[in-house]
Amino acid sequence: MKFYNSIGPNPKLVRVFAAEKGFELPNVQEVDIMVGENRQAEYMAKNPAAGMPSLELDDGQVIAETIAICELIEELQPEPALIGTTAAERAETRMWVRRVEWKIMAPLTDGFRNAEGSALFKDRMRLMPEASDWLKSCAQDGLSWLDEQIAGRDTIVPGRFSLADVALFAFADFGAQVGQPIDAELKNVTAWFEKAKGRPSAGA
Amino acid sequence: MKFYNSIGPNPKLVRVFAAEKGFELPNVQEVDIMVGENRQAEYMAKNPAAGMPSLELDDGQVIAETIAICELIEELQPEPALIGTTAAERAETRMWVRRVEWKIMAPLTDGFRNAEGSALFKDRMRLMPEASDWLKSCAQDGLSWLDEQIAGRDTIVPGRFSLADVALFAFADFGAQVGQPIDAELKNVTAWFEKAKGRPSAGA
Repeated sequence: MKFYNSIGPNPKLVRVFAAEKGFELPNVQEVDIMVGENRQAEYMAKNPAAGMPSLELDDGQVIAETIAICELIEELQPEPALIGTTAAERAETRMWVRRVEWKIMAPLTDGFRNAEGSALFKDRMRLMPEASDWLKSCAQDGLSWLDEQIAGRDTIVPGRFSLADVALFAFADFGAQVGQPIDAELKNVTAWFEKAKGRPSAGA
Repeated sequence: MKFYNSIGPNPKLVRVFAAEKGFELPNVQEVDIMVGENRQAEYMAKNPAAGMPSLELDDGQVIAETIAICELIEELQPEPALIGTTAAERAETRMWVRRVEWKIMAPLTDGFRNAEGSALFKDRMRLMPEASDWLKSCAQDGLSWLDEQIAGRDTIVPGRFSLADVALFAFADFGAQVGQPIDAELKNVTAWFEKAKGRPSAGA
């Protein structure tokens, strides 16, 4: 197997997930997205969506998309479970993963791409710079919603640290670096983030 | 178990998936989203994100988010497999599901909510009507990308009908009703859509 890695929150998400599992990502190959290596023919033959990261299996099949890669790692090495050990647990994790992705991670990313990231992304996708403030506000709305949801608990899925925590952590960490920090008034999410930052996996 | 159903592409996605599996959705309860029943305390106690549909399990746990519900149905009734029978197959399906969701389904939905759907959604989420044309164009960009990807095949995941087909079908069907049809020049996606419309599950 081979893991195609780069800077950015998506590769970090998978690296943190692997670190939490004690799963060693195989044959890490760095791809320089700043010069567009991920948009050249060699990489796009592997992942035609051009996104990072991706995982090449021993038979040559390439799996892209962070959550698909994390699900595969969980199947290859079930313990410690970060998605779940029963169908109901897995369903609950997948529900929360999608909530944080759609409500927070997606608009945060799009807000960045249309503003601070526009020099990098303007030739890679259709942008609308005027929409960036709206997108960032949508991400903050998502964080406010989450702040209410996790009152009284320190994990996104009640009672267990999961892929939902890993996913949001990678993007909250990115947000903090690009002008979209968590509002300090969101006490629960702020405390959750500080705790996630303190885990050994945080620097992965 | 109880299935909370409504109009809209998300419940349809789960109904089509269940129909393809031959899985009978239990105790279907209709929720009238046009009058905001999904935003009243009774439903939000079950799904605090207020989205439709959701599936209440026998122990009272509620699973929301379409793909999480479909994954659970696949676990409850593995055959016929619409996600996969091996870890690699499941990873491949999840990758394609996410590609069509993020590239097509998300901007199509947001384009609708900020334009034709704004009367319904203006008090339910933060909107930016000026962004609707951009969002719709992003969805069309996603369809154009997909059109190249599926050249020479009639399913989104190569060689097998999957959750990726079901998911995009439900939203392409919705798009056709709200002013975002598939561009007829996209021959491959158009042919794919016509074929999906011809399946017995299409009317579910």
